[in-house]
Amino acid sequence: MSDFGDYLKACQKRIDTHLDQQFCNSHPGLERLYAAIRYSVTGGGKRVRPLLAYASCEALGGTDKPVDVVAGAVELIHAYSLIHDDLPAMDDDNLRRGRPTCHRAFDEATAILAGDALQALAFEWISCEGSWQAETRLRMTTLLARAAGPQGMVGGQAIDLASVGAQLDQNALEDMHQHKTGALIHASVRLGALATERADDDQLAALEEYARCIGLAFQVQDDIIDIESDTSVSGKQQGADHARGKPTYPAMLGLDGAHALARSLCDQAISTLEPFGSPAERLRQVARYIVERRF
Amino acid sequence: MSDFGDYLKACQKRIDTHLDQQFCNSHPGLERLYAAIRYSVTGGGKRVRPLLAYASCEALGGTDKPVDVVAGAVELIHAYSLIHDDLPAMDDDNLRRGRPTCHRAFDEATAILAGDALQALAFEWISCEGSWQAETRLRMTTLLARAAGPQGMVGGQAIDLASVGAQLDQNALEDMHQHKTGALIHASVRLGALATERADDDQLAALEEYARCIGLAFQVQDDIIDIESDTSVSGKQQGADHARGKPTYPAMLGLDGAHALARSLCDQAISTLEPFGSPAERLRQVARYIVERRF
Repeated sequence: MSDFGDYLKACQKRIDTHLDQQFCNSHPGLERLYAAIRYSVTGGGKRVRPLLAYASCEALGGTDKPVDVVAGAVELIHAYSLIHDDLPAMDDDNLRRGRPTCHRAFDEATAILAGDALQALAFEWISCEGSWQAETRLRMTTLLARAAGPQGMVGGQAIDLASVGAQLDQNALEDMHQHKTGALIHASVRLGALATERADDDQLAALEEYARCIGLAFQVQDDIIDIESDTSVSGKQQGADHARGKPTYPAMLGLDGAHALARSLCDQAISTLEPFGSPAERLRQVARYIVERRF
Repeated sequence: MSDFGDYLKACQKRIDTHLDQQFCNSHPGLERLYAAIRYSVTGGGKRVRPLLAYASCEALGGTDKPVDVVAGAVELIHAYSLIHDDLPAMDDDNLRRGRPTCHRAFDEATAILAGDALQALAFEWISCEGSWQAETRLRMTTLLARAAGPQGMVGGQAIDLASVGAQLDQNALEDMHQHKTGALIHASVRLGALATERADDDQLAALEEYARCIGLAFQVQDDIIDIESDTSVSGKQQGADHARGKPTYPAMLGLDGAHALARSLCDQAISTLEPFGSPAERLRQVARYIVERRF
């Protein structure tokens, strides 16, 4: 098994190549919209969600060829959420991945539409691409819709907005993040498994617990990075969440407490993978990567 | 066959009742998001798209029970598009259906999220509700995604933005509207037909032509209403499109020319329905309604 750094790069290259082949459209009047879509989707990023889909598929011994479709679809949902979250009426961010945010590089109206378009495209891809049985594709489509919608990611953003300046306890903070980032991370893991068309209920339940732990660990680590990493490393404005009065794990538990929680969640995630044996090694490495990354 | 006015009211009541049963959620932090969703979806409206789905289903002799799901899904996509179109960065409208627009009644961030949530919910509904075969549901999901996305409705909005203040010829104007409103109107007709699980290719092709004509007629009539109806009737600011420098049919063809085009498109739509016989009577009435309405 090759070094995880190489695997990470290979996965990133793979999804980047896949995404780079999309969004070709020269219809009159749509040039700016497609430019904004390409700008937002092909502008790098860690590609954690595609990585999870690939690694989850591998854990079940699945061929990973058609997983590009689901990896791409979750990345589109993620990309759309970043565009909308960055808008002036939301987080009002100027910088994303070290470049101007979509509404800064283009304009607000185009950014709103690019996000809207990406959400629709994600459902188009997942409902009609690939060679799965109809039942599998439907299940994947519904899963992605729930993860993206008000009971998932969008709901998390709404809870986040409602909680600015509020005192949240740790349960409420966890609830917010399980919606905001956890739902789509969970969907990525589950979609990778469903794509093999051989996951049983026990395996899906174990992966659900794995996803719950790393989803939360991901957010804890994001909060830590917001404090510890400067802008040149993270590509985001340092301390932006903190300055906005958003509740964070370091604010609640202290920096050491937050680090300890991230490590504990990582260990918990890895322990759920025991029944999968060595094919789940990539998922274990991803769990470690999530709490060790600096951006 | 009862009076069309009664049929219209019955369809509106039916979809209103269906929609009114949704969006129940009392999760902490999601109250405002769900309130904005309910406000936007259950606040009246002509329900043209659900009406088309019901009437199209009837034209194929289908039981119309499960059509509520597809009628509801297209209405959610429509509702989300109105919320986002009304935003300050887009059309900056204060009034919709005689009430404050979503971002005015709530706030911009909530309006953006409510639109995003509605799009996801539409795909959740259409991919998992109802009792259709998996292949049918997948086909419906893909159809809705294409109609909503950059090759459909969102693309139309982008073309519209790109064309403000520009000189469009009639073909370019038609192209914009076939994206902006035509795609979802077409999807409504086709979804109603697919919901019967008995539409053949010839029938779908005829309905496609019907939808193309009434989709365009709908927009021509909207442009006419923008000029002729005052705010108290239309629920929108009179002359708003005109004032914005948006290209309109009356501006291009004159008011008489626009009326003539709407009537001609209506006749064309009705003529494509000939092979369906009397079961398509509701679709014929809808075509006439579209070009005769005053709001």
